[in-house]
Amino acid sequence: MPQSTRLRILLVGASGVLGRAVDAALSERHDLIRAGSKSGEVRIDIADPASILQGLNEAGPVDAVCCTAGKVNFPPLASVEPQTLASSVYGLGLANKLMGQVNLALAARRSLRDGGSITLISGILSEAPIPGGSSAAMVNAALEGFVRTAACELPRGLRLNLVSPTVFTESMADYGPFFPGFEPVPVAKAALAYCRSVEGIQTGQVYRVGF
Amino acid sequence: MPQSTRLRILLVGASGVLGRAVDAALSERHDLIRAGSKSGEVRIDIADPASILQGLNEAGPVDAVCCTAGKVNFPPLASVEPQTLASSVYGLGLANKLMGQVNLALAARRSLRDGGSITLISGILSEAPIPGGSSAAMVNAALEGFVRTAACELPRGLRLNLVSPTVFTESMADYGPFFPGFEPVPVAKAALAYCRSVEGIQTGQVYRVGF
Ligand SMILES: NC(=O)c1ccc[n+]([C@@H]2O[C@H](COP(=O)([O-])OP(=O)(O)OC[C@H]3O[C@@H](n4cnc5c(N)ncnc54)[C@H](OP(=O)(O)O)[C@@H]3O)[C@@H](O)[C@H]2O)c1
Ligand SMILES: NC(=O)c1ccc[n+]([C@@H]2O[C@H](COP(=O)([O-])OP(=O)(O)OC[C@H]3O[C@@H](n4cnc5c(N)ncnc54)[C@H](OP(=O)(O)O)[C@@H]3O)[C@@H](O)[C@H]2O)c1
Repeated sequence: MPQSTRLRILLVGASGVLGRAVDAALSERHDLIRAGSKSGEVRIDIADPASILQGLNEAGPVDAVCCTAGKVNFPPLASVEPQTLASSVYGLGLANKLMGQVNLALAARRSLRDGGSITLISGILSEAPIPGGSSAAMVNAALEGFVRTAACELPRGLRLNLVSPTVFTESMADYGPFFPGFEPVPVAKAALAYCRSVEGIQTGQVYRVGF
Repeated sequence: MPQSTRLRILLVGASGVLGRAVDAALSERHDLIRAGSKSGEVRIDIADPASILQGLNEAGPVDAVCCTAGKVNFPPLASVEPQTLASSVYGLGLANKLMGQVNLALAARRSLRDGGSITLISGILSEAPIPGGSSAAMVNAALEGFVRTAACELPRGLRLNLVSPTVFTESMADYGPFFPGFEPVPVAKAALAYCRSVEGIQTGQVYRVGF
């Protein structure tokens, strides 16, 4: 059997529903540095590249960077009008969940030890239409494309994977009405996908959870 | 057998490799209005929302809007650094091929007759990694997510589909070295997918061509 090593892991979004589950799953066996924009030992706002660089600098060398943060909005399509990238209602999701995580992955290249991993968050809306879901669909799908290709171009055996869960049982009180007929999954199952990515050997994978 | 009707079709990107093939395939049976940023009866720069609105206004009511235009760059991942959405090297593809086409689709809602269609262009790089392909992967995949969800929220029976071809035989002289081992497809085959979208009844589809 392969030996299990204690890893140093930066978890961005540690205080959230998903973040707490990933924390619980990984912190038994590994050392976690918890980050968020308004919480955590290290402060990182993924929407701000300078904040990412500073936070990674504070965190020091790590074996894994996990992200469980990323905002999108849910504009009904009828309310969306043609606008430039910067002023579009799609700009929030593109700047935060997409480019925020892309920038975290790009910056992590210099913080990660050889063979280290980056694990980002997507979601079922890349495939499943819901009302107001066009921004989430665009952003989640973009993350899949980015991860598949960027994983192949990373140096030093660095790995890059994506977790794409359906809605969590724990979030049904908030999101249930927007996911009619969707079977929720316990958030702990999504946390397992982070373990697979961090402690496994694959790269460029999209780990679907619950669909 | 269903009767075939003569349709009024706006083709954005008509002068390009793909545009000329779509032109040839559709203009036998339909009336085309050809557009481009520097060519065509109507001038439309998809990167500029005001230009889209003005061009659609000039074109008048149509039964279909087809887009065969959309730029991305090919930065080696090692050259990409964390940057805000606006200043990122990924900004070009996100503003041009992604938001340019998204904005064309959004604006087309007011130009299209009931049951009319919008057909956009993606490509195999959403799935297949090539060196420097992370921007194209992100943008092409984002278009797939957008089309799948937005198609379900369009009014008046409007339809929205995406054509995703592999590299064209006609483009191998230019792009061949970047697509080692990829089997090219005649561009006329991608043009057939536009006919399927425009003259068919489906919506929310990604028509893969040659892979
Ligand atoms: N909940 C679901 O059912 C579900 C299902 C599939 C996918 N997802 C995806 O999973 C991700 C997390 O969802 P969640 O429900 O766990 O969210 P959540 O409970 O709202 O938690 C969000 C976490 O991210 C942090 N955060 C927020 N903005 C940040 C920023 N700009 N920079 C850094 N950290 C930031 C928050 O901490 P601070 O306040 O300290 O910043 C918090 O720790 C989202 O991308 C969501 O789309 C969720
Ligand atoms: N070539 C391939 O093998 C291949 C394979 C798969 C997918 N694709 C995709 O297919 C699309 C077309 O490729 P192509 O090889 O046919 O390109 P192309 O030969 O360079 O033609 C581009 C066309 O788009 C127009 N255009 C350029 N910028 C524009 C803008 N800002 N607004 C409106 N029109 C604009 C051009 O006319 P003006 O100069 O007048 O603007 C021209 O008609 C691209 O998105 C490409 O990624 C190509």
